[in-house]
Amino acid sequence: MIRIGIDVGGTQIKVGAVTDGGRLLASAAVPTGAGRPYTAMIDDMAGCVAQLLARLDARPEALSMIGVGLPGYVDNERGLAVNCTNLNWIDVPVRAALGRYYGCPVLLENDANAAAIAEGRVGAAAGCASCVMITLGTGVGSAILLDGRVWRGSHGVAGELGHMTVVPGGLHCNCGRSGCADRYCSATALAAQGRQACLMYGDSAMLAMAGGDPAAVTAKMVTEAARAGDRAALAAFGDYTRHLATLVDNVISLLDPEVVLLGGGVSRAGAFLLDAVKALIPPCDMGQRRPLPRIALAALGNEAGMIGAALLE
Amino acid sequence: MIRIGIDVGGTQIKVGAVTDGGRLLASAAVPTGAGRPYTAMIDDMAGCVAQLLARLDARPEALSMIGVGLPGYVDNERGLAVNCTNLNWIDVPVRAALGRYYGCPVLLENDANAAAIAEGRVGAAAGCASCVMITLGTGVGSAILLDGRVWRGSHGVAGELGHMTVVPGGLHCNCGRSGCADRYCSATALAAQGRQACLMYGDSAMLAMAGGDPAAVTAKMVTEAARAGDRAALAAFGDYTRHLATLVDNVISLLDPEVVLLGGGVSRAGAFLLDAVKALIPPCDMGQRRPLPRIALAALGNEAGMIGAALLE
Repeated sequence: MIRIGIDVGGTQIKVGAVTDGGRLLASAAVPTGAGRPYTAMIDDMAGCVAQLLARLDARPEALSMIGVGLPGYVDNERGLAVNCTNLNWIDVPVRAALGRYYGCPVLLENDANAAAIAEGRVGAAAGCASCVMITLGTGVGSAILLDGRVWRGSHGVAGELGHMTVVPGGLHCNCGRSGCADRYCSATALAAQGRQACLMYGDSAMLAMAGGDPAAVTAKMVTEAARAGDRAALAAFGDYTRHLATLVDNVISLLDPEVVLLGGGVSRAGAFLLDAVKALIPPCDMGQRRPLPRIALAALGNEAGMIGAALLE
Repeated sequence: MIRIGIDVGGTQIKVGAVTDGGRLLASAAVPTGAGRPYTAMIDDMAGCVAQLLARLDARPEALSMIGVGLPGYVDNERGLAVNCTNLNWIDVPVRAALGRYYGCPVLLENDANAAAIAEGRVGAAAGCASCVMITLGTGVGSAILLDGRVWRGSHGVAGELGHMTVVPGGLHCNCGRSGCADRYCSATALAAQGRQACLMYGDSAMLAMAGGDPAAVTAKMVTEAARAGDRAALAAFGDYTRHLATLVDNVISLLDPEVVLLGGGVSRAGAFLLDAVKALIPPCDMGQRRPLPRIALAALGNEAGMIGAALLE
């Protein structure tokens, strides 16, 4: 049997055929074209599934399920995408719409949760009973797996790590509050910190990378210049990792998960990021030293969403 | 059948006879006498149980279980108190020792978890699927109930709220780190903030309460003077509640529990504390306003430990 995982992102819809064991057999993608009628997007998803079946020389009857990871709030019980802001979707009946093409069960999940499920089953947290995955992208996303299941909270809004306070009284956040992790620990924040450092140091390598325009500095430029020893970039990266370490540390103090995974764009800095964050979490010693969870990089990258969606149960 | 709950504190051992529904039928207490051989303490516990049975005119056969809440790390599987610093207990075989007196099952639990179990079953969080209880005492303690069960974490150290960072780079903590909630949100911290405010304002009502000695100011004096409008006390109480609100807010952002309970000594300030903390948690509004859990006072006070121990399963 073949499982289908669909990862609906803001720019691309990625569709993968996956084994029961979580191995990706084949994948296809189409532009999301956000703003189109949802039926057009569902048509494209069904088209990708047909394409994969053809490539795998399989019939529709070979499908055991279709899982869909969506960027927003979903209601799997009712088969609805309740609110996906970036897609402009409100109460879209995804299960019913896909059900018109394929007879297998259609399951829905939030995309960050789907990615964490994949990491927890076949990725960097495979075999772990509990895992918190922190995604360092445009914002700070996260998902919590406890005893192997997604912890959603009592109102479905658990894991809002982007709005945990890391700097009390700090920078204003879009949510109306201040000092949120989104403003200090996202890729967006790292880029902003790099731009600011360019202005303060003047001679930064980041400026050259950005063609002389501080406003064009990206998170990637900051980590690359920091790795090369650029003073301005090191200052920005140091601030960034210090705040990220506070966030990770607070998650650990509260939940004591078996593993904390760092994913998303900034995590492509790899061990350079990971080692810096680990070094900034001081030991907590009350008579005996508190054991620390493993802190690691997510392993499945862009495929996590598809694989996790395909492994929904 | 009668359940027995034993709450072993630093100064008192409290023993209660409890119904299956969590109602306290009778209770007895003896001084802990920490430092005595553990066998002497166990003798006293068994004596209290005998006393309760006599008062209830019941026979030992009427006991369905004995639950023990202990101030430290317990291993219920092996029936051991692994490490209870305040009692000077290392690997004490509590189950075997009590088993010499009574034939019913003996179950062990950490005391904070036991209190939370009681609040979750018959107290302020009764009927709630998830609850985080924060105890504001000498330190900041806590317990996490998810789907009705204690979440212990992967190393048994979940819920270390006292060592979540509330002020990055803040006051040094005994654990070797800085800015921990223990240093800002405990009763000890509130008293220290009151003493400091006395020195800065000079004319505080707290000073009179403390017999003119700033060092004698207690957490209770701070809340009482603040309630009466004393400027110095209001400043201290304001700082305290601001930090506590940060802590509560971070717990909510991460876990989205159904209810957050405030217990322990400082919570005796009642609505004066609760309303202040609630008012200091700003709404988080990302397109739609994030729902907030109920934030409430613990209801069972000193009886929570006994009742929760008696309800262990």
